Amino acid sequence: MNLKPLDERVIVKPLEEDEEKKVGSIIIPDTAKERPQMGEVVAVGDDVPKKEGGKLLSQVLKAGDRVIYSKYGGTEIEQEGQKYLILSRGDILAKIG
Amino acid sequence: MNLKPLDERVIVKPLEEDEEKKVGSIIIPDTAKERPQMGEVVAVGDDVPKKEGGKLLSQVLKAGDRVIYSKYGGTEIEQEGQKYLILSRGDILAKIG
Amino acid sequence: MNLKPLDERVIVKPLEEDEEKKVGSIIIPDTAKERPQMGEVVAVGDDVPKKEGGKLLSQVLKAGDRVIYSKYGGTEIEQEGQKYLILSRGDILAKIG
Amino acid sequence: MNLKPLDERVIVKPLEEDEEKKVGSIIIPDTAKERPQMGEVVAVGDDVPKKEGGKLLSQVLKAGDRVIYSKYGGTEIEQEGQKYLILSRGDILAKIG
Amino acid sequence: MNLKPLDERVIVKPLEEDEEKKVGSIIIPDTAKERPQMGEVVAVGDDVPKKEGGKLLSQVLKAGDRVIYSKYGGTEIEQEGQKYLILSRGDILAKIG
Amino acid sequence: MNLKPLDERVIVKPLEEDEEKKVGSIIIPDTAKERPQMGEVVAVGDDVPKKEGGKLLSQVLKAGDRVIYSKYGGTEIEQEGQKYLILSRGDILAKIG
Amino acid sequence: MNLKPLDERVIVKPLEEDEEKKVGSIIIPDTAKERPQMGEVVAVGDDVPKKEGGKLLSQVLKAGDRVIYSKYGGTEIEQEGQKYLILSRGDILAKIG
Repeated sequence: MNLKPLDERVIVKPLEEDEEKKVGSIIIPDTAKERPQMGEVVAVGDDVPKKEGGKLLSQVLKAGDRVIYSKYGGTEIEQEGQKYLILSRGDILAKIG
Repeated sequence: MNLKPLDERVIVKPLEEDEEKKVGSIIIPDTAKERPQMGEVVAVGDDVPKKEGGKLLSQVLKAGDRVIYSKYGGTEIEQEGQKYLILSRGDILAKIG
Repeated sequence: MNLKPLDERVIVKPLEEDEEKKVGSIIIPDTAKERPQMGEVVAVGDDVPKKEGGKLLSQVLKAGDRVIYSKYGGTEIEQEGQKYLILSRGDILAKIG
Repeated sequence: MNLKPLDERVIVKPLEEDEEKKVGSIIIPDTAKERPQMGEVVAVGDDVPKKEGGKLLSQVLKAGDRVIYSKYGGTEIEQEGQKYLILSRGDILAKIG
Repeated sequence: MNLKPLDERVIVKPLEEDEEKKVGSIIIPDTAKERPQMGEVVAVGDDVPKKEGGKLLSQVLKAGDRVIYSKYGGTEIEQEGQKYLILSRGDILAKIG
Repeated sequence: MNLKPLDERVIVKPLEEDEEKKVGSIIIPDTAKERPQMGEVVAVGDDVPKKEGGKLLSQVLKAGDRVIYSKYGGTEIEQEGQKYLILSRGDILAKIG
Repeated sequence: MNLKPLDERVIVKPLEEDEEKKVGSIIIPDTAKERPQMGEVVAVGDDVPKKEGGKLLSQVLKAGDRVIYSKYGGTEIEQEGQKYLILSRGDILAKIG
């Protein structure tokens, strides 16, 4: 993946529904109103404005991390048949494992 | 629970209605307009931006704490048949006990 | 009351209409558009982010204080037949006495 | 008046229309779209968060000051037959005299 | 004029349309969508919160200055047959001369 | 031009459509949704609150600069048959040349 | 290109759809809801207010960089038959390569 997200953004490879079920035995119920998804972080913005006393995004997430993210607001791109999402820091809800 | 909430988020295991009634004799009336719920904290984000002079979320809440939370905005996930909610700091109204 | 409000929140026991009339001879007219209410503070959040040069909520209010509060936004709970409200700092308009 | 306004709030006793006309010969025209009113400050919040380089509300207003205030947003209370308003700092437009 | 505007407010005496035409040969076209007006500053708030590195309102405007102001948001008052407007700093667009 | 814009404002003399075409060979397509315009800066506010680490408006623009500006939000005035616009810093998109 | 974007703005030359397909094998799917586009940075604002601990825009992007940008909010201009867009920092999602 030769893309570098700007500022507080993350690029995530969404997991297939099959794959999702094998990650830490976590299930996202179909009944969830704004159904989130699982994905794998592939790139993290390093031009991140640091909040006073807070952590840089690159201290919190790194390539390879599995995450649960909210689908709202992401931008879809594709490379060699694989779909990716450019997400904002606020779209990442939790890190798995 | 192998999930780590990002930034100022908390993962909470909702209490069953039966269980709710045994917690500190507190009842959430059915007549409450935006009925909150009780739950048990299972994980707290440790990447919390610190407000000037305020406390980190991890200084305020820890796993095992019983809390009253507002249902608005939470994201539902499931692990081994148990439902959990990923909530923001602002969704937690009070700590019980 | 074994509840601890989070951050800049207060727990208040609403006064009965009868009781209201005995508090400092103050009356809240029925004609008031967004009719506020009187109550007694039972718990104050001590995890309060301090504004630069301002006072902590716990320096301003303590258990036992009688207050006038706006009903908008409060969350109702009940313990041993007594109703309580979880309010935000901004819902408390004035302290009586 | 045994009420203490919280934070950046002021308690004001509205002037009667008759009284209004005697205050510094200022008239509020009936044609004004959001007609403001005149009143006398009876209490000022002393728990005021200080803006960097700005003045505390208690350095700007004191009990007895005559003010012109915008009616929008105030909360009405009554004591011994006299109506009062709990207003925010931003509702006070000018000080008379 | 015995009125003192609070915080970042200014009191302005609107110029008559006749007078307007004599001020620096500036004309406000009738076709302007939100037609501004000309006026003379009569009082400036000195309780102004100072922005970091910015100027106090009293360093920028003084009584007697002719200004162009936007009519949106001003509050009209009257003294001895003369109309005045209480305006916010943001309503003053430019100083004439 | 005897007008001094307040705070972060700029006064601009709009270029005629004919003149526009001679400026750096830049054309603003008629198909542009919110069609911007070209103009010449005639006055710059020097009462500019400085953002931490940013530049004063007067360090960025000076009288005589040709600019592309967004028409949204400007206030039109006229002097000796020439129209001018009072614009905010945010309305200026780019400097030509 | 003789245009200098103001503050946190960037001027971008959009890539043709044909050209887009040759950039790092990245494809923007036609099914994407708010379809972003690829472009080449031609100018970067150097009057950028620096966020505490963050990077200046000119440290993050330079002329010649290929970027993926959101079309929302950009302003279209034209020079010698070539279209350009004036974009805000927040419109740039990622840098290619």
